[in-house]
Amino acid sequence: MPVYQASLTIATDGAGTHEITDRVAAEVRRSRCKAGIVTVFCRHTSCSLVIFENADPSARADLEAWFDRMVPDRDPHFTHTAEGPDDMPSHIKTALTRTSEVIPFADGRLLLGQWQGVFLWEHRARAHQRSVVVTVVGE
Amino acid sequence: MPVYQASLTIATDGAGTHEITDRVAAEVRRSRCKAGIVTVFCRHTSCSLVIFENADPSARADLEAWFDRMVPDRDPHFTHTAEGPDDMPSHIKTALTRTSEVIPFADGRLLLGQWQGVFLWEHRARAHQRSVVVTVVGE
Amino acid sequence: MPVYQASLTIATDGAGTHEITDRVAAEVRRSRCKAGIVTVFCRHTSCSLVIFENADPSARADLEAWFDRMVPDRDPHFTHTAEGPDDMPSHIKTALTRTSEVIPFADGRLLLGQWQGVFLWEHRARAHQRSVVVTVVGE
Repeated sequence: MPVYQASLTIATDGAGTHEITDRVAAEVRRSRCKAGIVTVFCRHTSCSLVIFENADPSARADLEAWFDRMVPDRDPHFTHTAEGPDDMPSHIKTALTRTSEVIPFADGRLLLGQWQGVFLWEHRARAHQRSVVVTVVGE
Repeated sequence: MPVYQASLTIATDGAGTHEITDRVAAEVRRSRCKAGIVTVFCRHTSCSLVIFENADPSARADLEAWFDRMVPDRDPHFTHTAEGPDDMPSHIKTALTRTSEVIPFADGRLLLGQWQGVFLWEHRARAHQRSVVVTVVGE
Repeated sequence: MPVYQASLTIATDGAGTHEITDRVAAEVRRSRCKAGIVTVFCRHTSCSLVIFENADPSARADLEAWFDRMVPDRDPHFTHTAEGPDDMPSHIKTALTRTSEVIPFADGRLLLGQWQGVFLWEHRARAHQRSVVVTVVGE
Protein backbone atom coordinates (compact mmCIF):
# COMPACT_ATOMS: atom_id res chain seq x y z
CA MET A 1 0.00 0.00 0.00
CA PRO A 2 1.84 3.09 -1.20
CA VAL A 3 1.44 6.73 -0.17
CA TYR A 4 0.71 9.20 -2.97
CA GLN A 5 1.08 12.92 -2.28
CA ALA A 6 0.44 16.04 -4.36
CA SER A 7 0.25 19.75 -3.71
CA LEU A 8 -2.52 21.84 -5.25
CA THR A 9 -2.17 25.57 -5.77
CA ILE A 10 -5.47 27.42 -5.74
CA ALA A 11 -5.83 31.03 -6.83
CA THR A 12 -8.71 32.62 -4.93
CA ASP A 13 -10.25 35.92 -5.98
CA GLY A 14 -11.11 37.07 -2.46
CA ALA A 15 -13.53 35.87 0.19
CA GLY A 16 -15.76 32.96 -0.73
CA THR A 17 -15.97 29.22 -1.32
CA HIS A 18 -14.04 27.69 -4.21
CA GLU A 19 -14.84 24.13 -5.30
CA ILE A 20 -11.87 21.73 -5.57
CA THR A 21 -13.73 18.40 -5.79
CA ASP A 22 -12.52 17.60 -9.33
CA ARG A 23 -8.91 18.35 -8.46
CA VAL A 24 -9.02 16.02 -5.44
CA ALA A 25 -10.70 13.30 -7.54
CA ALA A 26 -8.00 13.68 -10.23
CA GLU A 27 -5.25 13.04 -7.67
CA VAL A 28 -7.01 9.87 -6.52
CA ARG A 29 -7.04 8.67 -10.15
CA ARG A 30 -3.36 9.58 -10.56
CA SER A 31 -2.49 7.56 -7.45
CA ARG A 32 -3.83 4.42 -9.23
CA CYS A 33 -5.17 3.25 -5.86
CA LYS A 34 -8.52 1.52 -5.99
CA ALA A 35 -9.74 1.76 -2.39
CA GLY A 36 -8.67 3.82 0.59
CA ILE A 37 -8.77 7.34 1.96
CA VAL A 38 -7.67 10.71 0.62
CA THR A 39 -6.69 13.41 3.10
CA VAL A 40 -7.07 17.05 2.12
CA PHE A 41 -5.03 19.50 4.21
CA CYS A 42 -5.18 23.31 4.02
CA ARG A 43 -1.79 24.91 4.83
CA HIS A 44 -3.18 28.25 6.03
CA THR A 45 -4.76 29.86 9.08
CA SER A 46 -7.00 32.35 7.25
CA CYS A 47 -8.70 29.99 4.82
CA SER A 48 -10.20 26.58 5.45
CA LEU A 49 -11.99 23.55 4.06
CA VAL A 50 -15.64 22.60 4.12
CA ILE A 51 -17.62 19.81 2.47
CA PHE A 52 -20.86 21.49 1.46
CA GLU A 53 -23.91 21.52 -0.81
CA ASN A 54 -22.59 22.08 -4.34
CA ALA A 55 -25.80 22.21 -6.38
CA ASP A 56 -27.44 25.54 -5.50
CA PRO A 57 -25.08 28.54 -5.09
CA SER A 58 -27.65 30.25 -2.83
CA ALA A 59 -26.78 27.75 -0.07
CA ARG A 60 -23.13 28.86 -0.15
CA ALA A 61 -24.11 32.53 -0.28
CA ASP A 62 -26.28 32.06 2.83
CA LEU A 63 -23.49 30.14 4.59
CA GLU A 64 -20.92 32.86 3.89
CA ALA A 65 -23.31 35.64 4.95
CA TRP A 66 -24.16 33.81 8.21
CA PHE A 67 -20.44 33.51 9.06
CA ASP A 68 -19.93 37.21 8.24
CA ARG A 69 -22.72 38.10 10.69
CA MET A 70 -21.35 35.79 13.39
CA VAL A 71 -17.74 36.96 13.07
CA PRO A 72 -17.95 40.53 11.80
CA ASP A 73 -14.99 42.53 10.59
CA ARG A 74 -14.18 45.48 12.86
CA ASP A 75 -15.37 43.76 16.06
CA PRO A 76 -14.03 46.25 18.64
CA HIS A 77 -12.97 43.37 20.93
CA PHE A 78 -10.22 42.29 18.51
CA THR A 79 -6.65 43.32 19.32
CA HIS A 80 -4.92 41.33 16.51
CA THR A 81 -5.65 43.91 13.80
CA ALA A 82 -2.25 44.78 12.30
CA GLU A 83 -3.08 42.96 9.04
CA GLY A 84 -6.47 44.62 8.65
CA PRO A 85 -10.06 44.20 9.84
CA ASP A 86 -10.59 40.87 8.01
CA ASP A 87 -7.54 39.17 9.57
CA MET A 88 -8.88 38.05 12.96
CA PRO A 89 -12.31 37.06 11.55
CA SER A 90 -10.45 34.88 9.02
CA HIS A 91 -8.65 33.02 11.79
CA ILE A 92 -11.88 32.46 13.74
CA LYS A 93 -13.79 31.25 10.67
CA THR A 94 -10.93 28.80 10.05
CA ALA A 95 -11.20 27.48 13.62
CA LEU A 96 -14.97 27.02 13.15
CA THR A 97 -14.63 24.98 9.95
CA ARG A 98 -11.86 22.50 8.96
CA THR A 99 -8.16 22.37 8.25
CA SER A 100 -8.20 18.67 7.31
CA GLU A 101 -10.83 16.39 5.80
CA VAL A 102 -10.58 12.67 5.05
CA ILE A 103 -12.68 11.28 2.21
CA PRO A 104 -13.03 7.55 1.44
CA PHE A 105 -12.84 6.21 -2.11
CA ALA A 106 -13.60 2.90 -3.83
CA ASP A 107 -13.09 1.77 -7.45
CA GLY A 108 -10.86 4.85 -7.74
CA ARG A 109 -13.79 7.24 -7.11
CA LEU A 110 -14.58 9.51 -4.16
CA LEU A 111 -17.45 8.21 -2.01
CA LEU A 112 -19.01 11.66 -1.67
CA GLY A 113 -22.76 11.94 -1.29
CA GLN A 114 -24.87 13.20 -4.18
CA TRP A 115 -24.87 16.83 -3.03
CA GLN A 116 -21.39 17.05 -1.51
CA GLY A 117 -18.55 19.09 -2.91
CA VAL A 118 -15.13 19.84 -1.39
CA PHE A 119 -14.49 23.56 -1.05
CA LEU A 120 -11.56 25.75 -0.16
CA TRP A 121 -13.03 28.70 1.71
CA GLU A 122 -11.02 31.91 1.36
CA HIS A 123 -11.73 34.12 4.39
CA ARG A 124 -9.51 37.09 3.47
CA ALA A 125 -10.96 39.91 1.38
CA ARG A 126 -8.04 39.98 -1.06
CA ALA A 127 -7.14 37.35 -3.66
CA HIS A 128 -4.51 34.82 -2.51
CA GLN A 129 -2.51 31.86 -3.80
CA ARG A 130 -3.40 28.98 -1.48
CA SER A 131 -1.75 25.60 -1.01
CA VAL A 132 -3.55 22.33 -0.24
CA VAL A 133 -1.82 18.96 0.24
CA VAL A 134 -3.61 15.84 -0.99
CA THR A 135 -2.43 12.48 0.38
CA VAL A 136 -3.82 9.16 -0.84
CA VAL A 137 -3.39 6.06 1.32
CA GLY A 138 -4.87 2.93 -0.19
CA GLU A 139 -4.35 -0.18 -2.20
CA MET B 1 -1.75 -3.48 5.40
CA PRO B 2 -5.20 -3.88 3.85
CA VAL B 3 -8.03 -1.36 3.53
CA TYR B 4 -11.39 -2.43 4.94
CA GLN B 5 -14.50 -0.46 3.99
CA ALA B 6 -18.15 -0.69 5.02
CA SER B 7 -21.23 1.44 4.59
CA LEU B 8 -23.61 2.02 7.51
CA THR B 9 -27.24 2.98 7.00
CA ILE B 10 -28.70 4.95 9.89
CA ALA B 11 -32.40 5.64 10.26
CA THR B 12 -32.87 8.91 12.12
CA ASP B 13 -36.20 9.94 13.60
CA GLY B 14 -35.73 13.67 13.07
CA ALA B 15 -33.39 16.26 14.50
CA GLY B 16 -31.01 15.09 17.19
CA THR B 17 -27.84 13.14 17.96
CA HIS B 18 -27.77 9.40 17.31
CA GLU B 19 -24.95 7.31 18.80
CA ILE B 20 -23.05 5.04 16.35
CA THR B 21 -20.02 4.14 18.49
CA ASP B 22 -20.86 0.43 18.68
CA ARG B 23 -21.38 0.17 14.93
CA VAL B 24 -18.00 1.78 14.22
CA ALA B 25 -16.33 -0.50 16.78
CA ALA B 26 -17.96 -3.56 15.17
CA GLU B 27 -16.48 -2.66 11.77
CA VAL B 28 -13.01 -2.38 13.31
CA ARG B 29 -13.43 -5.88 14.73
CA ARG B 30 -14.66 -7.19 11.35
CA SER B 31 -11.59 -5.73 9.66
CA ARG B 32 -9.39 -8.01 11.83
CA CYS B 33 -6.85 -5.21 12.01
CA LYS B 34 -5.13 -4.82 15.36
CA ALA B 35 -3.77 -1.26 15.20
CA GLY B 36 -4.45 1.71 12.98
CA ILE B 37 -7.07 4.33 12.24
CA VAL B 38 -10.74 4.20 11.36
CA THR B 39 -12.22 7.04 9.31
CA VAL B 40 -15.91 7.85 9.65
CA PHE B 41 -17.38 9.88 6.78
CA CYS B 42 -20.90 11.34 6.60
CA ARG B 43 -22.22 11.47 3.00
CA HIS B 44 -24.67 14.34 3.56
CA THR B 45 -24.77 18.13 3.81
CA SER B 46 -27.64 18.42 6.28
CA CYS B 47 -26.42 16.00 8.96
CA SER B 48 -22.96 15.68 10.47
CA LEU B 49 -20.69 13.91 12.93
CA VAL B 50 -19.58 14.88 16.40
CA ILE B 51 -17.62 13.05 19.10
CA PHE B 52 -19.36 14.04 22.30
CA GLU B 53 -20.13 13.25 25.93
CA ASN B 54 -22.20 10.04 25.90
CA ALA B 55 -22.98 9.53 29.59
CA ASP B 56 -25.52 12.22 30.47
CA PRO B 57 -28.23 12.95 27.83
CA SER B 58 -28.68 16.47 29.28
CA ALA B 59 -25.32 17.45 27.75
CA ARG B 60 -26.57 16.55 24.26
CA ALA B 61 -29.89 18.28 24.87
CA ASP B 62 -28.04 21.48 25.85
CA LEU B 63 -25.75 21.16 22.81
CA GLU B 64 -28.66 20.78 20.40
CA ALA B 65 -30.57 23.67 21.98
CA TRP B 66 -27.51 25.94 21.80
CA PHE B 67 -27.11 25.21 18.07
CA ASP B 68 -30.84 25.86 17.54
CA ARG B 69 -30.47 29.27 19.19
CA MET B 70 -27.32 30.09 17.18
CA VAL B 71 -28.74 29.01 13.82
CA PRO B 72 -32.49 29.51 14.12
CA ASP B 73 -35.00 28.25 11.58
CA ARG B 74 -36.77 31.07 9.73
CA ASP B 75 -33.80 33.48 9.90
CA PRO B 76 -35.05 36.19 7.51
CA HIS B 77 -31.54 36.53 6.00
CA PHE B 78 -31.75 33.09 4.39
CA THR B 79 -32.56 32.90 0.68
CA HIS B 80 -32.04 29.13 0.24
CA THR B 81 -35.45 28.17 1.61
CA ALA B 82 -37.08 26.04 -1.12
CA GLU B 83 -36.75 22.85 0.97
CA GLY B 84 -38.19 24.41 4.10
CA PRO B 85 -37.12 26.53 7.06
CA ASP B 86 -34.84 23.83 8.53
CA ASP B 87 -32.81 23.35 5.32
CA MET B 88 -30.31 26.20 5.50
CA PRO B 89 -29.79 25.85 9.29
CA SER B 90 -29.00 22.15 8.64
CA HIS B 91 -26.26 23.07 6.18
CA ILE B 92 -24.74 25.64 8.56
CA LYS B 93 -24.81 23.25 11.53
CA THR B 94 -23.02 20.70 9.33
CA ALA B 95 -20.33 23.26 8.46
CA LEU B 96 -19.87 24.02 12.18
CA THR B 97 -19.37 20.38 13.19
CA ARG B 98 -17.71 17.52 11.21
CA THR B 99 -18.11 15.57 8.01
CA SER B 100 -15.14 13.27 8.74
CA GLU B 101 -13.55 12.02 11.93
CA VAL B 102 -10.51 9.76 12.33
CA ILE B 103 -10.29 7.56 15.42
CA PRO B 104 -7.23 5.51 16.37
CA PHE B 105 -7.50 1.91 17.57
CA ALA B 106 -5.16 -0.63 19.19
CA ASP B 107 -5.67 -4.30 20.10
CA GLY B 108 -8.73 -4.08 17.83
CA ARG B 109 -10.45 -1.51 20.10
CA LEU B 110 -11.23 2.17 19.57
CA LEU B 111 -8.98 4.47 21.63
CA LEU B 112 -11.87 6.72 22.63
CA GLY B 113 -11.73 8.49 25.97
CA GLN B 114 -13.94 7.35 28.83
CA TRP B 115 -16.76 9.81 28.05
CA GLN B 116 -16.54 9.92 24.27
CA GLY B 117 -19.16 8.57 21.91
CA VAL B 118 -19.41 8.93 18.12
CA PHE B 119 -22.67 10.53 17.03
CA LEU B 120 -24.48 11.12 13.78
CA TRP B 121 -26.28 14.43 14.19
CA GLU B 122 -29.46 14.73 12.14
CA HIS B 123 -30.15 18.42 11.53
CA ARG B 124 -33.36 18.07 9.50
CA ALA B 125 -36.72 18.01 11.31
CA ARG B 126 -37.97 14.94 9.42
CA ALA B 127 -36.73 11.36 9.74
CA HIS B 128 -34.12 10.34 7.13
CA GLN B 129 -32.09 7.33 6.02
CA ARG B 130 -28.45 8.42 6.32
CA SER B 131 -25.28 6.83 4.94
CA VAL B 132 -21.90 6.78 6.68
CA VAL B 133 -18.76 5.19 5.23
CA VAL B 134 -16.33 3.52 7.64
CA THR B 135 -12.79 2.86 6.39
CA VAL B 136 -10.20 0.96 8.43
CA VAL B 137 -6.52 1.36 7.58
CA GLY B 138 -4.24 -0.68 9.79
CA GLU B 139 -2.26 -3.83 10.32
CA MET C 1 3.77 0.29 5.60
CA PRO C 2 3.67 0.02 9.37
CA VAL C 3 1.41 1.81 11.86
CA TYR C 4 3.20 3.76 14.60
CA GLN C 5 1.20 4.89 17.63
CA ALA C 6 2.06 6.96 20.70
CA SER C 7 0.14 8.58 23.52
CA LEU C 8 0.99 12.11 24.65
CA THR C 9 0.13 13.38 28.12
CA ILE C 10 -0.36 17.12 28.27
CA ALA C 11 -0.59 19.04 31.53
CA THR C 12 -2.76 22.12 30.99
CA ASP C 13 -2.87 24.96 33.48
CA GLY C 14 -6.50 25.88 32.88
CA ALA C 15 -8.40 27.32 29.93
CA GLY C 16 -6.37 28.24 26.88
CA THR C 17 -4.47 26.96 23.86
CA HIS C 18 -1.35 24.85 24.39
CA GLU C 19 0.98 24.23 21.44
CA ILE C 20 1.90 20.57 20.76
CA THR C 21 3.42 20.92 17.27
CA ASP C 22 6.93 19.85 18.34
CA ARG C 23 5.64 16.78 20.17
CA VAL C 24 3.66 15.64 17.12
CA ALA C 25 6.69 16.25 14.87
CA ALA C 26 8.90 14.23 17.25
CA GLU C 27 6.56 11.21 16.97
CA VAL C 28 6.74 11.39 13.17
CA ARG C 29 10.55 11.28 13.41
CA ARG C 30 10.40 8.36 15.86
CA SER C 31 8.16 6.43 13.44
CA ARG C 32 11.01 6.52 10.87
CA CYS C 33 8.38 6.94 8.16
CA LYS C 34 9.34 9.29 5.35
CA ALA C 35 5.96 10.14 3.79
CA GLY C 36 2.37 9.72 4.90
CA ILE C 37 -0.15 11.11 7.36
CA VAL C 38 -0.17 11.65 11.10
CA THR C 39 -3.50 11.61 12.91
CA VAL C 40 -3.87 13.56 16.16
CA PHE C 41 -6.82 12.50 18.33
CA CYS C 42 -8.01 14.21 21.53
CA ARG C 43 -9.53 11.72 24.00
CA HIS C 44 -11.76 14.23 25.81
CA THR C 45 -15.09 16.03 25.44
CA SER C 46 -14.14 19.26 27.24
CA CYS C 47 -10.92 20.06 25.39
CA SER C 48 -10.21 19.97 21.68
CA LEU C 49 -7.71 20.49 18.89
CA VAL C 50 -7.20 23.41 16.53
CA ILE C 51 -4.54 24.23 13.94
CA PHE C 52 -4.01 27.94 14.34
CA GLU C 53 -1.72 30.94 13.89
CA ASN C 54 1.29 30.32 16.14
CA ALA C 55 3.34 33.49 15.61
CA ASP C 56 1.43 36.25 17.42
CA PRO C 57 -0.17 35.30 20.79
CA SER C 58 -2.73 38.12 20.36
CA ALA C 59 -4.47 36.03 17.66
CA ARG C 60 -5.02 33.18 20.13
CA ALA C 61 -6.14 35.59 22.86
CA ASP C 62 -8.74 37.06 20.48
CA LEU C 63 -9.85 33.57 19.42
CA GLU C 64 -10.33 32.42 23.02
CA ALA C 65 -12.17 35.63 23.98
CA TRP C 66 -14.50 35.32 20.96
CA PHE C 67 -15.42 31.75 21.96
CA ASP C 68 -16.00 32.89 25.56
CA ARG C 69 -18.43 35.55 24.30
CA MET C 70 -20.21 33.08 21.98
CA VAL C 71 -20.53 30.32 24.59
CA PRO C 72 -20.62 32.11 27.93
CA ASP C 73 -20.40 30.36 31.28
CA ARG C 74 -23.60 30.61 33.30
CA ASP C 75 -25.90 30.69 30.24
CA PRO C 76 -29.28 30.24 31.99
CA HIS C 77 -30.44 27.86 29.21
CA PHE C 78 -27.97 25.17 30.30
CA THR C 79 -29.31 22.27 32.37
CA HIS C 80 -26.10 20.16 32.41
CA THR C 81 -24.45 22.14 35.21
CA ALA C 82 -23.57 19.56 37.88
CA GLU C 83 -19.84 19.87 37.14
CA GLY C 84 -19.83 23.66 37.25
CA PRO C 85 -20.60 26.64 35.00
CA ASP C 86 -17.67 25.94 32.62
CA ASP C 87 -18.70 22.32 31.91
CA MET C 88 -21.37 22.74 29.24
CA PRO C 89 -19.51 25.60 27.46
CA SER C 90 -16.47 23.26 27.31
CA HIS C 91 -18.49 20.59 25.52
CA ILE C 92 -19.92 23.09 23.02
CA LYS C 93 -16.51 24.63 22.28
CA THR C 94 -15.23 21.09 21.64
CA ALA C 95 -18.08 20.45 19.18
CA LEU C 96 -17.25 23.72 17.37
CA THR C 97 -13.55 22.89 16.92
CA ARG C 98 -11.89 19.48 16.34
CA THR C 99 -11.43 16.12 18.03
CA SER C 100 -9.22 14.73 15.23
CA GLU C 101 -6.84 16.33 12.75
CA VAL C 102 -4.81 14.64 10.00
CA ILE C 103 -1.55 16.26 8.94
CA PRO C 104 0.52 15.12 5.95
CA PHE C 105 4.29 14.75 6.15
CA ALA C 106 7.12 14.24 3.65
CA ASP C 107 10.86 13.66 4.16
CA GLY C 108 9.90 12.94 7.78
CA ARG C 109 8.63 16.52 8.34
CA LEU C 110 5.12 17.87 8.89
CA LEU C 111 3.77 19.74 5.86
CA LEU C 112 2.32 22.54 7.98
CA GLY C 113 2.10 26.00 6.50
CA GLN C 114 4.45 28.73 7.68
CA TRP C 115 2.08 30.10 10.32
CA GLN C 116 0.38 26.89 11.43
CA GLY C 117 0.79 25.30 14.83
CA VAL C 118 -1.10 22.35 16.35
CA PHE C 119 -2.80 23.26 19.62
CA LEU C 120 -4.59 21.41 22.37
CA TRP C 121 -7.30 23.76 23.60
CA GLU C 122 -8.24 23.30 27.24
CA HIS C 123 -11.80 24.56 27.74
CA ARG C 124 -12.14 23.85 31.48
CA ALA C 125 -11.11 26.54 33.98
CA ARG C 126 -9.04 24.16 36.11
CA ALA C 127 -5.72 22.52 35.17
CA HIS C 128 -6.07 18.97 33.75
CA GLN C 129 -3.92 16.08 32.55
CA ARG C 130 -5.01 15.47 28.95
CA SER C 131 -4.33 12.53 26.64
CA VAL C 132 -3.78 12.77 22.88
CA VAL C 133 -3.14 9.76 20.61
CA VAL C 134 -0.77 10.23 17.67
CA THR C 135 -0.91 7.64 14.87
CA VAL C 136 1.49 7.65 11.94
CA VAL C 137 0.55 5.78 8.76
CA GLY C 138 3.18 5.99 6.04
CA GLU C 139 6.13 4.45 4.33
